[in-house]
Amino acid sequence: MSVTAPGGFEAAGIACGIKPDGVPDLALVSTADRRSVAAAGVFTTNLATAAPVQISRRHLEDGQAAAVILSSGNANAATGEPGRRDARRMCELTAQELGCQADDVLVCSTGLIGIPLPMDPIESGIPKLVGSLGSDSSAGEAAAAAMLTTDTARKESEVPLDLSGATATVGGMAKGAAMLAPAMATMLAVLTTDAAVAPSALQAALDRAVADTFNALIVDGCTSTNDTVLALAGGGAGNDPIVESGPGFTALEASLTSVCAHLAGQMAIDAEGATKRALIVVRGGRSGEDARRAARGVAASQLVQCSLNGGDPYWGRVLSELGASGATFDPERAEIAYNGITVCRDGIAADHDGAALERAMSGREIEITCDLHEGTAEATVLFTDLSHAYIDENRGTS
Amino acid sequence: MSVTAPGGFEAAGIACGIKPDGVPDLALVSTADRRSVAAAGVFTTNLATAAPVQISRRHLEDGQAAAVILSSGNANAATGEPGRRDARRMCELTAQELGCQADDVLVCSTGLIGIPLPMDPIESGIPKLVGSLGSDSSAGEAAAAAMLTTDTARKESEVPLDLSGATATVGGMAKGAAMLAPAMATMLAVLTTDAAVAPSALQAALDRAVADTFNALIVDGCTSTNDTVLALAGGGAGNDPIVESGPGFTALEASLTSVCAHLAGQMAIDAEGATKRALIVVRGGRSGEDARRAARGVAASQLVQCSLNGGDPYWGRVLSELGASGATFDPERAEIAYNGITVCRDGIAADHDGAALERAMSGREIEITCDLHEGTAEATVLFTDLSHAYIDENRGTS
Repeated sequence: MSVTAPGGFEAAGIACGIKPDGVPDLALVSTADRRSVAAAGVFTTNLATAAPVQISRRHLEDGQAAAVILSSGNANAATGEPGRRDARRMCELTAQELGCQADDVLVCSTGLIGIPLPMDPIESGIPKLVGSLGSDSSAGEAAAAAMLTTDTARKESEVPLDLSGATATVGGMAKGAAMLAPAMATMLAVLTTDAAVAPSALQAALDRAVADTFNALIVDGCTSTNDTVLALAGGGAGNDPIVESGPGFTALEASLTSVCAHLAGQMAIDAEGATKRALIVVRGGRSGEDARRAARGVAASQLVQCSLNGGDPYWGRVLSELGASGATFDPERAEIAYNGITVCRDGIAADHDGAALERAMSGREIEITCDLHEGTAEATVLFTDLSHAYIDENRGTS
Repeated sequence: MSVTAPGGFEAAGIACGIKPDGVPDLALVSTADRRSVAAAGVFTTNLATAAPVQISRRHLEDGQAAAVILSSGNANAATGEPGRRDARRMCELTAQELGCQADDVLVCSTGLIGIPLPMDPIESGIPKLVGSLGSDSSAGEAAAAAMLTTDTARKESEVPLDLSGATATVGGMAKGAAMLAPAMATMLAVLTTDAAVAPSALQAALDRAVADTFNALIVDGCTSTNDTVLALAGGGAGNDPIVESGPGFTALEASLTSVCAHLAGQMAIDAEGATKRALIVVRGGRSGEDARRAARGVAASQLVQCSLNGGDPYWGRVLSELGASGATFDPERAEIAYNGITVCRDGIAADHDGAALERAMSGREIEITCDLHEGTAEATVLFTDLSHAYIDENRGTS
């Protein structure tokens, strides 16, 4: 499982002292031979990007990286030039210990915004972290644990990647929790593969994988300062390097998408305070953009999220959000179903089996299907309910 | 106070039986002489408009109306052609009892979506309602009470309107509670004035008043199917009819804006579950649109709303929402203050008086000021915190 599933990668996770009480807070993923390999990244669209995002973007310009250093508990965001200096220092210290170039190290941080990064524990932690690198699954698990914040469980995935003449693997780890929004969930994820891939092909495949997974997940509609998804392709599988649109590219994209979808699903189920995981499927859209708008409108609605929390199939709110979404459709042709039970047809209440609906709503997984009956476009967004626990988690920083 | 403050208007409110337990649910505002007068309206931008919105829009085409009938407890939304028939029937019955034309009656409903309107109590209620019309303040209060849903208090306002050679009054009543969003708060409001106003001038003044008040109020970002603001100008004050850009127009706009602002403020303080009323002021925007985007981005943020609920001055989230809002600015020049106490300068933490900040955050009114330092444009949005009670109010329809 996780980032050490593909051959050629090592990982580590330790508690260095950023978080109190000895909770793991420093993680590392590195190529086993410390050489830089093809790398790609997708970053937050937030204008107020955190320092590590700025530094990682720069270090990725050559499409190469040897390692990713991650810290949790402090986002190193809204920290100005001192924050960038700290992020660069994290790369330099890691490179020094690994024996690689500082600009081949990528850096991610997650946690509170606006507080200077405590560099002392990080400076003393990095040598220990590098010293504990390992290639087995427990090393991957340690890294996956050390990147978490308010998450209650590690998020890991591993899928095969069949290439002609070679079998490779894609592994991944992520942290989620809250601030998950369509313009990229608030999250960090690191993916690894032993497939040989040209950097541009890795970037193209990663862009598409993120669009259909992390960017189709809404918890609270907030886009963070630190969102980052990184991918490293080591090449140990021995295949001919995959280029965009060449052999193996579709398989690579599918495997990356699959790992991202697994991680996004784990984020939704572990979203702060969530008691339900919901899927909104909009069908019959006039265009893909219209269908996406409609699906996001429903998923981002506090009122729909509240009704799911109460297990209330209040389709009137769903129709209202479709109507407010900006999608073009005739509300008097719309159809809405909860877990396959149609409750609204032609825009008005439809007779249905009330007992079956009640059973469906009491479950932990709810699928809302809306047919706009305007065309053939479809969109799906994963989201969650809104609970007391979400508020409790976010009403104070201490 | 309320809609009977200006001369020439009567009002009534009764319990007809839409809501259980004898709670008032049917309201009426009418000209005292039953003749139609200048009227204007602003309606929801939701595509899934409720039946009463569709009928009122049609009845307002001639810029004239004699009365407004309002029901609460059922929105008559997502009810298709039968819903439109019911809304028309409400106008016909009211006109019959008043002795005016059906198309001079406007209609509003508020409450649950997707359930056929119970017409029996309304049919028997309207004659009683008309029979109880009165022009004193208790009649206005009865109407203001009968339009409420989950509101805990009536929302009323009255301001003078000084015209050269005549003094008029603007009165208003509203219902709010939840589903308050920038593309018009989920709400109903009826304004009356005894000023003489040309219908086009009344519409123009109302449009501007709504833009700066109800459309600058966010509770949960949801835009409802039923949002309606109506204004009737009776003319009893004896002034020369106000025309757009003519004498008295600016005063009319100011008085309408003042009444709408009072009502919006009452909505914010009575928003479902809200424990704090917050104002976000964005200054230094490159353009008005940029400043509005930034202010709305912060106000609509669940995470900012949660931190206010906990009295936590977490400015990092505010900066993050500014960055995600789509506004163009340099985060490393941004300044953020809570109730005048600057906590962020040049995009990073600023030294401040912690005790003073704690006192400010414990209050019921919080003002967040953000200076983008890009230009001179400014925007203000009123919003609230997000509480357990909001979820409880909205997790079930029963």
